[in-house]
Amino acid sequence: MNIIGSAYKVCIFGSSHGPFIGGSVQGCPHGEKISTTAIQIEMDRRAPGKGPVSTPRSERDRVEIVSGLHEGRATGAPIVGLVKNRDCDSSAYDAFRRVPRPGHADYPALVKYGGNNDHRGGGQFSGRMTAGLVFAGAVARQVLERRKVRVLAQTIQVGKVRLEKLVPFSAAEKLTRTNAVCCADRAVAEQMKDEIVKAHEEKDSVGGIVRCTVLGVPVGVGEPFFGSIESSLSAMMFSIPGVKGVEFGAGFASGALRGSENNDPFIIRNKKIVTKSNNAGGILGGLSTGMPIEFKVAFKPTSSIAKPQMSVDIEAKKPIELVVSGRHDPCIVPRAVPVVENSAAAVMLDLMLQGGFI
Amino acid sequence: MNIIGSAYKVCIFGSSHGPFIGGSVQGCPHGEKISTTAIQIEMDRRAPGKGPVSTPRSERDRVEIVSGLHEGRATGAPIVGLVKNRDCDSSAYDAFRRVPRPGHADYPALVKYGGNNDHRGGGQFSGRMTAGLVFAGAVARQVLERRKVRVLAQTIQVGKVRLEKLVPFSAAEKLTRTNAVCCADRAVAEQMKDEIVKAHEEKDSVGGIVRCTVLGVPVGVGEPFFGSIESSLSAMMFSIPGVKGVEFGAGFASGALRGSENNDPFIIRNKKIVTKSNNAGGILGGLSTGMPIEFKVAFKPTSSIAKPQMSVDIEAKKPIELVVSGRHDPCIVPRAVPVVENSAAAVMLDLMLQGGFI
Amino acid sequence: MNIIGSAYKVCIFGSSHGPFIGGSVQGCPHGEKISTTAIQIEMDRRAPGKGPVSTPRSERDRVEIVSGLHEGRATGAPIVGLVKNRDCDSSAYDAFRRVPRPGHADYPALVKYGGNNDHRGGGQFSGRMTAGLVFAGAVARQVLERRKVRVLAQTIQVGKVRLEKLVPFSAAEKLTRTNAVCCADRAVAEQMKDEIVKAHEEKDSVGGIVRCTVLGVPVGVGEPFFGSIESSLSAMMFSIPGVKGVEFGAGFASGALRGSENNDPFIIRNKKIVTKSNNAGGILGGLSTGMPIEFKVAFKPTSSIAKPQMSVDIEAKKPIELVVSGRHDPCIVPRAVPVVENSAAAVMLDLMLQGGFI
Amino acid sequence: MNIIGSAYKVCIFGSSHGPFIGGSVQGCPHGEKISTTAIQIEMDRRAPGKGPVSTPRSERDRVEIVSGLHEGRATGAPIVGLVKNRDCDSSAYDAFRRVPRPGHADYPALVKYGGNNDHRGGGQFSGRMTAGLVFAGAVARQVLERRKVRVLAQTIQVGKVRLEKLVPFSAAEKLTRTNAVCCADRAVAEQMKDEIVKAHEEKDSVGGIVRCTVLGVPVGVGEPFFGSIESSLSAMMFSIPGVKGVEFGAGFASGALRGSENNDPFIIRNKKIVTKSNNAGGILGGLSTGMPIEFKVAFKPTSSIAKPQMSVDIEAKKPIELVVSGRHDPCIVPRAVPVVENSAAAVMLDLMLQGGFI
Repeated sequence: MNIIGSAYKVCIFGSSHGPFIGGSVQGCPHGEKISTTAIQIEMDRRAPGKGPVSTPRSERDRVEIVSGLHEGRATGAPIVGLVKNRDCDSSAYDAFRRVPRPGHADYPALVKYGGNNDHRGGGQFSGRMTAGLVFAGAVARQVLERRKVRVLAQTIQVGKVRLEKLVPFSAAEKLTRTNAVCCADRAVAEQMKDEIVKAHEEKDSVGGIVRCTVLGVPVGVGEPFFGSIESSLSAMMFSIPGVKGVEFGAGFASGALRGSENNDPFIIRNKKIVTKSNNAGGILGGLSTGMPIEFKVAFKPTSSIAKPQMSVDIEAKKPIELVVSGRHDPCIVPRAVPVVENSAAAVMLDLMLQGGFI
Repeated sequence: MNIIGSAYKVCIFGSSHGPFIGGSVQGCPHGEKISTTAIQIEMDRRAPGKGPVSTPRSERDRVEIVSGLHEGRATGAPIVGLVKNRDCDSSAYDAFRRVPRPGHADYPALVKYGGNNDHRGGGQFSGRMTAGLVFAGAVARQVLERRKVRVLAQTIQVGKVRLEKLVPFSAAEKLTRTNAVCCADRAVAEQMKDEIVKAHEEKDSVGGIVRCTVLGVPVGVGEPFFGSIESSLSAMMFSIPGVKGVEFGAGFASGALRGSENNDPFIIRNKKIVTKSNNAGGILGGLSTGMPIEFKVAFKPTSSIAKPQMSVDIEAKKPIELVVSGRHDPCIVPRAVPVVENSAAAVMLDLMLQGGFI
Repeated sequence: MNIIGSAYKVCIFGSSHGPFIGGSVQGCPHGEKISTTAIQIEMDRRAPGKGPVSTPRSERDRVEIVSGLHEGRATGAPIVGLVKNRDCDSSAYDAFRRVPRPGHADYPALVKYGGNNDHRGGGQFSGRMTAGLVFAGAVARQVLERRKVRVLAQTIQVGKVRLEKLVPFSAAEKLTRTNAVCCADRAVAEQMKDEIVKAHEEKDSVGGIVRCTVLGVPVGVGEPFFGSIESSLSAMMFSIPGVKGVEFGAGFASGALRGSENNDPFIIRNKKIVTKSNNAGGILGGLSTGMPIEFKVAFKPTSSIAKPQMSVDIEAKKPIELVVSGRHDPCIVPRAVPVVENSAAAVMLDLMLQGGFI
Repeated sequence: MNIIGSAYKVCIFGSSHGPFIGGSVQGCPHGEKISTTAIQIEMDRRAPGKGPVSTPRSERDRVEIVSGLHEGRATGAPIVGLVKNRDCDSSAYDAFRRVPRPGHADYPALVKYGGNNDHRGGGQFSGRMTAGLVFAGAVARQVLERRKVRVLAQTIQVGKVRLEKLVPFSAAEKLTRTNAVCCADRAVAEQMKDEIVKAHEEKDSVGGIVRCTVLGVPVGVGEPFFGSIESSLSAMMFSIPGVKGVEFGAGFASGALRGSENNDPFIIRNKKIVTKSNNAGGILGGLSTGMPIEFKVAFKPTSSIAKPQMSVDIEAKKPIELVVSGRHDPCIVPRAVPVVENSAAAVMLDLMLQGGFI
């Protein structure tokens, strides 16, 4: 089911080459000022640009609000946003019903839906569906920001290029907007761009890692076990196409640590109880500790590549060489940054509403 | 809310030092033979042993089925299992209300519940709650195994010791039962044990990584986006105390790969369409591909260590040195193996029921 | 939350005077042929006509499918339908923020939403929202009819005029379409029309009762307790504006009966086990018995009447006489008939999917 | 699924002749004082007495709290209560697998579960399961009463005997506790008792109607459409075995009324905005108006009667006369009163929590 969340429920619908895609949210507190301009800005960040690092598809993701706002404020009813699909040449996709593309959902979707799914442009599996996530999050973050909760995602790895240093939140917020790869360091951003361009030139693609930080979350948000911050955020993150890993704080590295290294000692700073380090990523027992919530999301390289690949002709039951033509981002990571950021905002609003913090 | 799942709903309840802990499952198909002995075997795997690698707490997790089975078969009603808590000296825990233990939920729980939570033994945050997960999964896996779906978890890392080679499923199934750390290689198991004993001797603890494989899942299980296999499994895994990372297939490593390396080419083997490699971890577009589902779960080192740590006296608002005494596993990974394995079974049954595969 | 259902989830959104209203359904089995013409026919039945018994508002409820269908078949993705709102003079509604209309949600909505709700035309409380229910049901009934499950609602009471005789299903199906009040008897239909016209002439409105029958439901649909057919249908019915009572089979009359009168004896007819009578309304223990499912839904008279009524000026805190002008059905029952019928179909599909019957 | 509610989730489990029945609630605000004595008092009201109007089954529904309370307060974790089943001679029930009892779930349950359900004592369809509802409500009402929200159910009809007058809330609260039928008028109570005794002597049973009032609900509780007070309460009420009708305020009678009669005019009384009449039953647009919430619940006569009835031998496919022996209430209405009352409390707490009123 395409519904997630409890107190702030998010639903996404549509398909890549159908008439519309959209999102619907329920639970936005009535009376909240919600700017459609601010929503559009987030939609535009996700929409494909014109630079060398993204697909040339000329989408204009103009969002239309069809319900839930009245005179600029949430009415308490579901807020529904629609984006028209344009520029849809879907002829290229018919072939993938017979010869599934490696890395794509073509094959399991064909088996699951027996050919009834809308396969054009990836249909309901398309990365374009994430526009609905951005919409849901762009509403949520306005509610959060009014309560001093801020969310920032940034690219920290593209292929073999990794940003090692930690850039402070506010600086990173500005810097990530200055380059096409959403990296908080100009020099590394250039290397990342090169990595993408090189992959593209070689008819290939490249993966990467996004880091996300949520500042200002009060202590005690989240629930033990199934409603933990980690469970809730990871369920959202793993719904983003291409995500293959999620870790919080020290994450996988903590497996190699001793408890005395990994435990974050409590200290008093500015009369507040904080932890000296933040290996926990701001979460203990599923609850926020008041420290920044930190997590990383691994994206696999774009599955669509122009290089010849081996696949199978399903009808003939024979191996066949496949070349996926068409317009594709050689690296989805830069466009995934606003998706991670906004969808994280949707989850955090959900948890704060559940816990009675808003 | 302590409920997870859709067609196979799992609820866990109780607290570490209350009278009972337990689990409840709804959606087990009526008529399924469910062996209570088989459930007890899984419960015993999670229960603390007597070796050098686990806590000396003398629990006997005898599960009592209070509803849902009749003459050894599921009736269609919720199946509820209870485990009595024993041997509960909770006097040690009072101090943690004033001085929170680093790495534990003490501090955020105190803020969240204002002292109303049952803090003894970690209360509702206790690792002991995972007995309910094991119960839920021990029911589910019997349904799955009848359909040739098999689940296996194994320890692949403890601290700095890592099992690099891939042991075939059936061999690993046997080998992991021959040693206390649930490792599929005897020699590496010895090193892991040493790593744990060493940490224990140094009044410290150590983390690790569990790998889990699900064999026999038919093609097309899972849903796009929020109901993806990754979303569903990760939501469950991150509800297990101590988990800080989850990755599928190539996981975080795929961020450094090219598409041409990471895409798994389709081939025909034994007249079946399979993929040559399995970087996808058996999942494309959130759906099973028919290949083994593969994921890894990172556990942080046990938070309770006998070494002195820095914390804060919350009332006096002053730093204070804390020594956590009592019985604690120096490494939770071995006991987490059956938790990962069984809770994964619960998720897979849920997805298969949702998709109409059972 | 505006979501109902489990395996077939229905969401309605929009508001009376916003840009759109709509509905979304999830869980329609992929591959099902869904005719948009058939959907439109149901939408038209609910839309206001031109006769003496309905509001002259010139809506044209043309539904646009924005996702979920591909080449006339369900894709497995959410099916979303939109209806544009037109002809919206909302100036009349501003006054009701100060002087709430008796029988309407104005007063509690004002208190609940503090004036943030879209009050125009009843906003999210508007009867117009039922278009979303009809949409959801018009999809569902196509799936049901393919499995020989048929749903029929009919007006059996308008004010003091009541249809006492039981008209057989197929005859009633035809007859209810021959008159504006959806009554299965021509003569009684005329009396009902007169009752409505008379009320209208007296600047008043009138209530009524709708009876609904579902034929062809296999034995065993529904769940004990919270998932009972009665619980599920009543939750849907009571969400329709104006509904104040729901009863199954003998309903309230069974309170006055003896067990020996009320119990339906089992007999064998045409080699099938059926009951001789159907006081149970086709439901025992929350499950279908294979007999027709029968229930009645009581509608209060339209709240908007042109007669002067007493209300309160909320700001001045003084009594004030109110006349509700504008276009209003003097009796909502005829237009409620397709709402009851289609929304019942949505519930029955949900229960059949849950139970694995489809 | 045996789960209901959103912010206050209720789960019931067990079966009539299994080892335990029980209930579980999630969402009780942590820190609330919950008296187990007060819970036991409600359980005892439902438990069978010794008078002429109830079954002689010697149950002692002693509830044991297995989790969720600590030092008399809610911890925030699920509160689970268990009641041991005793005195279970289930030999009588085997016959009903072959010859279903009229009015009982035997036949559809046999078809649905293929004989796998626990049929003894009605199994998961048993009226005894309502002990779980009483438990859930007995917790909820303590939270409500602390906020001046009071719930009262009373018997207003048994067979042909009906209490016509309206007894004020506080008087009714006392009077209903003075007689075995829970009627707010001593004289009528005697007639009701006679009606039940007469039915019992004639080896028959008799139905009735329960009226329920909720006082003190603030304005604006409930949600439009699917989350309406009527939808939420009716879904709960119709899950109680034997319920065949639910109506709010004027209910079915409003179908015969004019709008000018049925609309409740707003007036000012004691500086508060109230309505002069309460045909709406305290609910407009699904939201509370601040007036008492009023609804009626119709119960069919007990299905088990000692009179011979016609049924069918399912294996022989032949008609057969059936006599249901054993212990049975000739009228379930008196014991249903605390079930209606407490389960209504559970629903109201859920809605108040959802709406942020608590």
